[in-house]
Amino acid sequence: MSKATVLVRLKSEVLDPQGDAVKRALDKLGFDGVRGVRIGKLIEIDLGDAPVADPAALKERLAKMADEMLANPVIEDFEIVV
Amino acid sequence: MSKATVLVRLKSEVLDPQGDAVKRALDKLGFDGVRGVRIGKLIEIDLGDAPVADPAALKERLAKMADEMLANPVIEDFEIVV
Repeated sequence: MSKATVLVRLKSEVLDPQGDAVKRALDKLGFDGVRGVRIGKLIEIDLGDAPVADPAALKERLAKMADEMLANPVIEDFEIVV
Repeated sequence: MSKATVLVRLKSEVLDPQGDAVKRALDKLGFDGVRGVRIGKLIEIDLGDAPVADPAALKERLAKMADEMLANPVIEDFEIVV
């Protein structure tokens, strides 16, 4: 089974209230030393059993998917891992 | 800056309606060959500038964080990347 992963992260200049809430909760639970938490998305795409003929083309297609659908390019960056 | 990443995935036996919706949307946009999509969380933890003295202890601490707070162990698995 070939699988691709798209990691979607908020751009560093975008506030992450969810991450801040998790950081505060970790502080309260006694986990010190955490300076910050950022939460993004881990998107795993099952591409079926067919062998990947052209990895570069696949990566390009995945980048198009991420740009059009999986990430919001205004506030998020993405990284493709094949 | 030392940073740790916690990847949180739904267990394989748990349905992922969000992933299914993304899969259908990709189909509609003309991206064929996608057999399934699963969506998880990418949690990045900033641990400050202090050098990591004991990587094994750090990993254990992160696993405790993930188990108590970052993931729901009933329906999710997590993976720690230091």
